Amino acid sequence: MNIRKLKEQTLKANLGLVEHSLVIFTWGNVSMIDRTNKIVAIKPSGVSYDSMCIDDIVVVDFDGNIIEGDMQPSSDLPTHLELYKAFKDIGGIVHTHSTFSTIFAQAGLAIPCLGTTHADYFYGGIPITRKLKHLEIKNDYEKNTGKVIIEAFKNKKAYEIPGVLVMNHGPFIWGKDAQDALHNAAVMEQLAETAYATMLLAPKISAIDDVLLDKHYLRKHGKNAYYGQK
Amino acid sequence: MNIRKLKEQTLKANLGLVEHSLVIFTWGNVSMIDRTNKIVAIKPSGVSYDSMCIDDIVVVDFDGNIIEGDMQPSSDLPTHLELYKAFKDIGGIVHTHSTFSTIFAQAGLAIPCLGTTHADYFYGGIPITRKLKHLEIKNDYEKNTGKVIIEAFKNKKAYEIPGVLVMNHGPFIWGKDAQDALHNAAVMEQLAETAYATMLLAPKISAIDDVLLDKHYLRKHGKNAYYGQK
Amino acid sequence: MNIRKLKEQTLKANLGLVEHSLVIFTWGNVSMIDRTNKIVAIKPSGVSYDSMCIDDIVVVDFDGNIIEGDMQPSSDLPTHLELYKAFKDIGGIVHTHSTFSTIFAQAGLAIPCLGTTHADYFYGGIPITRKLKHLEIKNDYEKNTGKVIIEAFKNKKAYEIPGVLVMNHGPFIWGKDAQDALHNAAVMEQLAETAYATMLLAPKISAIDDVLLDKHYLRKHGKNAYYGQK
Amino acid sequence: MNIRKLKEQTLKANLGLVEHSLVIFTWGNVSMIDRTNKIVAIKPSGVSYDSMCIDDIVVVDFDGNIIEGDMQPSSDLPTHLELYKAFKDIGGIVHTHSTFSTIFAQAGLAIPCLGTTHADYFYGGIPITRKLKHLEIKNDYEKNTGKVIIEAFKNKKAYEIPGVLVMNHGPFIWGKDAQDALHNAAVMEQLAETAYATMLLAPKISAIDDVLLDKHYLRKHGKNAYYGQK
Repeated sequence: MNIRKLKEQTLKANLGLVEHSLVIFTWGNVSMIDRTNKIVAIKPSGVSYDSMCIDDIVVVDFDGNIIEGDMQPSSDLPTHLELYKAFKDIGGIVHTHSTFSTIFAQAGLAIPCLGTTHADYFYGGIPITRKLKHLEIKNDYEKNTGKVIIEAFKNKKAYEIPGVLVMNHGPFIWGKDAQDALHNAAVMEQLAETAYATMLLAPKISAIDDVLLDKHYLRKHGKNAYYGQK
Repeated sequence: MNIRKLKEQTLKANLGLVEHSLVIFTWGNVSMIDRTNKIVAIKPSGVSYDSMCIDDIVVVDFDGNIIEGDMQPSSDLPTHLELYKAFKDIGGIVHTHSTFSTIFAQAGLAIPCLGTTHADYFYGGIPITRKLKHLEIKNDYEKNTGKVIIEAFKNKKAYEIPGVLVMNHGPFIWGKDAQDALHNAAVMEQLAETAYATMLLAPKISAIDDVLLDKHYLRKHGKNAYYGQK
Repeated sequence: MNIRKLKEQTLKANLGLVEHSLVIFTWGNVSMIDRTNKIVAIKPSGVSYDSMCIDDIVVVDFDGNIIEGDMQPSSDLPTHLELYKAFKDIGGIVHTHSTFSTIFAQAGLAIPCLGTTHADYFYGGIPITRKLKHLEIKNDYEKNTGKVIIEAFKNKKAYEIPGVLVMNHGPFIWGKDAQDALHNAAVMEQLAETAYATMLLAPKISAIDDVLLDKHYLRKHGKNAYYGQK
Repeated sequence: MNIRKLKEQTLKANLGLVEHSLVIFTWGNVSMIDRTNKIVAIKPSGVSYDSMCIDDIVVVDFDGNIIEGDMQPSSDLPTHLELYKAFKDIGGIVHTHSTFSTIFAQAGLAIPCLGTTHADYFYGGIPITRKLKHLEIKNDYEKNTGKVIIEAFKNKKAYEIPGVLVMNHGPFIWGKDAQDALHNAAVMEQLAETAYATMLLAPKISAIDDVLLDKHYLRKHGKNAYYGQK
């Protein structure tokens, strides 16, 4: 992929955050990786979506050095880079403070799989990271945010559960590219909203059976999937 | 009704799911039956509403064989077919994952009739199916989803209570045609929202008296109805 | 006021129900009275707001006999007529099933005055009627709905508290004309929403002090009011 | 700044209340101060945002005497003037009855800092005033509203926590100018919404650690800030 196309797709997905009501003001950011050319494109820091244009997108190498662009990259860039390094099969990352996902992050609760809508997209509950230690906050905070996410996926596959909650903070979501990550972010927000209300209505609720989880996840993903067009 | 008109009405009702905020992305589906010609038109599987056009609508016979259309029908087709076979007086079916109806489905709770808004449309509480057994999930899942719905209506009349919650999943709603089913789906979502909040505000609430239920349901339905124009 | 103008204002306020998101489909209705000419204009029964035009508005005398119009009047007309007879200083009435007001009606709870927003418009809590008795439901239901509202205002002034909840049903709201009643209906829905959430967050909350209630109500109403322009 | 520009910015921020869904009807008001020329521009009392124009904005001196404009200023003007006198580093003030901020005010609860979204903008919890005493309500109510706000900030810096809840009433929010105050008002409403829902989901939740609060607040504010563009 050429660098122009990478920037265009990154811009489009960033603007999609507003269309899907996942952000207000300058909140949130989307990045996309080109693994062949070893570059990542990301939203500039603190720039409003209203005026954002293709030249504002910042392109960096895997160490975060700016390759193209006059702006400072999102301050969350080190988190994105950690995730790209650890999760080899993801191509785009979204970070937002979307309302219901953030509520779970603030409550310190994972999002349990309470229905088939969830199972259609996430192969199990959406985990929450541990709290960062004081030193992890003080030094290399954004990089350590990536590290606690990776730690939370020690026994999980990132492509099967394409999102996480950072404790006290908010969600990070990924996908095979920026647009797919955006799609998953909008889905996760909807799952968070319905899980939230389900838990208020039925506080003792627990996750659906694995058989139902398997049925729904696997009819949409993997070699025996039969949902959608061929 | 000719096949073109059946497809048009099916398309229109599917697009109505978006207008009434009952679905996002490719979620949900609407079908409509022509009992004279023994055919059913339904949304194609996994297709976005933004780009959906008349030629995407799939027409099948009562065994699910494709009569017209190049796309795969909705994976929920076998559920629709079961319902059409069992409920002789319905002409259209809607399935969504709309927020508040899904919350009740996830919580494992029927929607009680808590007010006259509910009684204007549904002649009693909206039932929830039992859980499907593991074998019912593993084999013929979508057909068995239809069967547990029918089981939940053993002592009810489908035309008096035009909707149901599938446990851990979401709502199915029907009507005399696709447009009427869509209308009932939007009403049921509103009923679910108000019932949800009523139950949070007054957890010990119970259903309204049968006399009030009769008054409201029967002033809008049946031979002594006096609501609306003649 | 000539009959054309009465119908125009009634139509405008009915369409305002949609603009203020107080109704969906054919729900709700607004009427307006001309006390000089002893006539009332009201929405036709079961007609959609999308297509409603001036000729659809029905004009009746104080006994409900149709004076002008080809449609049947709202089935809630007898409730409106009772209220106009009992509350001499009101000129317009709104009935809706708006979400949060209906939630209180379904929960069987009055809306307490929990803040100054409420006190700016309603001089105290918004009452809820008693349940109608079975015979009151079976015979002259709509007229008896008016009677239980009037009963709930035995010790209150309708112009100081321009709205009520009918138990298990929804709100009726009034004002000096149709437009004013619409305004009060939108305000009451906002008050219901904030009261609802306040009661979930702080279940033991009670009404604000009378001194604060007086201050806010009386700075906007009555001879010593100092809010707004002269 | 010339008086025209002050009025323009004040008008723009007032209209922004509607764009950000912070007010309905005539509710709320924004003012802006010009400390050099010792004047304050503010919304007129009880005027609808739909028809508001530049000539409606009222300009007063620090004692509230009208310098320019034919309308009566907002009845909340004395509150604004008190705050400008006490908080020397603020340039604009917003008052609304926005839904979730008002819910906290009605519940009598401060908004705790439950996540990094909050810490990005407010350096700690958002305080709530004490109740006004009866005499403080009866005489100089609006001025005393300012005084209890100032009292609540005895040990806080207004520029670090740019907002407050007035008990039983609603929020006042400020910033370096009218537009900045508007921005903070929209942020505070979002923080109130997420805090509200977090507290329903996890009633025993407490504020985030100071180390995390420091990290987020100080990466956006002060001399070591590294968020945004230089």
